[in-house]
Amino acid sequence: MEKRKIEVCFTPALLPLYHIENAIVVVIDIFRATSSICYGIANGAEAIIPVATVEQCKAYESEGFLLAAEREGEIVEGFDFGNSPFAYTADKVKGKTVVLTTTNGTHAIDESKKTAFQVIIGSFLNLDAVCNYLRNQNKDVFLLCAGWKNKFNLEDSLFAGAVVHQLNHDDYFLDDSGIAAADLYRQAQDDLIAYTAKTSHSERLKKLGIEEDIRFCLNVNIIDSIPVLKENRLVKL
Amino acid sequence: MEKRKIEVCFTPALLPLYHIENAIVVVIDIFRATSSICYGIANGAEAIIPVATVEQCKAYESEGFLLAAEREGEIVEGFDFGNSPFAYTADKVKGKTVVLTTTNGTHAIDESKKTAFQVIIGSFLNLDAVCNYLRNQNKDVFLLCAGWKNKFNLEDSLFAGAVVHQLNHDDYFLDDSGIAAADLYRQAQDDLIAYTAKTSHSERLKKLGIEEDIRFCLNVNIIDSIPVLKENRLVKL
Repeated sequence: MEKRKIEVCFTPALLPLYHIENAIVVVIDIFRATSSICYGIANGAEAIIPVATVEQCKAYESEGFLLAAEREGEIVEGFDFGNSPFAYTADKVKGKTVVLTTTNGTHAIDESKKTAFQVIIGSFLNLDAVCNYLRNQNKDVFLLCAGWKNKFNLEDSLFAGAVVHQLNHDDYFLDDSGIAAADLYRQAQDDLIAYTAKTSHSERLKKLGIEEDIRFCLNVNIIDSIPVLKENRLVKL
Repeated sequence: MEKRKIEVCFTPALLPLYHIENAIVVVIDIFRATSSICYGIANGAEAIIPVATVEQCKAYESEGFLLAAEREGEIVEGFDFGNSPFAYTADKVKGKTVVLTTTNGTHAIDESKKTAFQVIIGSFLNLDAVCNYLRNQNKDVFLLCAGWKNKFNLEDSLFAGAVVHQLNHDDYFLDDSGIAAADLYRQAQDDLIAYTAKTSHSERLKKLGIEEDIRFCLNVNIIDSIPVLKENRLVKL
């Protein structure tokens, strides 16, 4: 294999600066979209369809799908559920198709699918599965943090750092954001919950009463499947 | 004083996401534009005029100013000098006005001046001076990393982290990028030269034969003045 590169993009706003035609893009929105997507697919959801807007989500009403919409951390009125991972358990999603729109995560999927070689979904829940898959493909790696409204956020960057940290032994070219993310992860890895509790985002989520969600999203390697985007549907790889 | 906030913006590309009307903006381009600007002003340059383009720089030819232009790390052909700090010693710049355009730094100044309350210039050379000044103003702090062609870079982020680290005791609100930058700085502070040697940017600069410049730009607190933007000219605060 030629020496591959890993790039870390801290927010979708910076995506236009990169060339991702030869890269597998890992979309990262730890609190909570991509954690919930990974959990739902692992729990047997047939597909999760990410859409950019609440209106697009509503348009699927007649198809008998589960509709999930989150904005500003809360379930949008009139929807079955939002992006809490506890809404993606087997008893709720097994064999079903979920249509999902969220503040940051589905936007990042939408932006990257236009040019990426492939789009997969990462979270701490399936960290090792993601790393093992990337290691075995002869492709560049592009870690796309969904961030918070196009700004940098800590938890997504930490997960990007975890991937860089694991793949680094395989001698990839790293960019500066990859170096920074991996160093942050090494500081945080012994206690991800304590580390991410420092963030303003985490404060905001606490106010929403979803601390249990947050703790759940920081579980490492509890599932071993990976959602992959195929024709606008996320399915098990 | 009301509780103020510190925000760290990792690249000028993200500037439109922020409101900086009530903030003192610190523009940061450690390798090498803002280090050289700080050094030049400390060494008695009357003013340094940052301009966005090489053409704008050339337009000052008839005024008897020193003209400095850098692109891709090298002096642009036909110019007196670029942005090596060693071109900003007292024997070269004392009493003189320098017109300067660089790949990243002058772009960041240009973008921020449109709406900021005030624009000052930071570097490791005048770290304490910058922090002391910010501490004594009743203003928010906005640390603007020039980055590399609108991407994140490590050395600018480290300096932002150094400022956050120092001001943090004064109980500012921090954003996630500020938390990350300060943690990176705490990892790097004992040996900034070794830490920044990891970066791709540093590799590139080495190839340009300017390792001495890099080492110089990582000197901490060797000057105590601050350049401030007044009517498009950087002068001593």
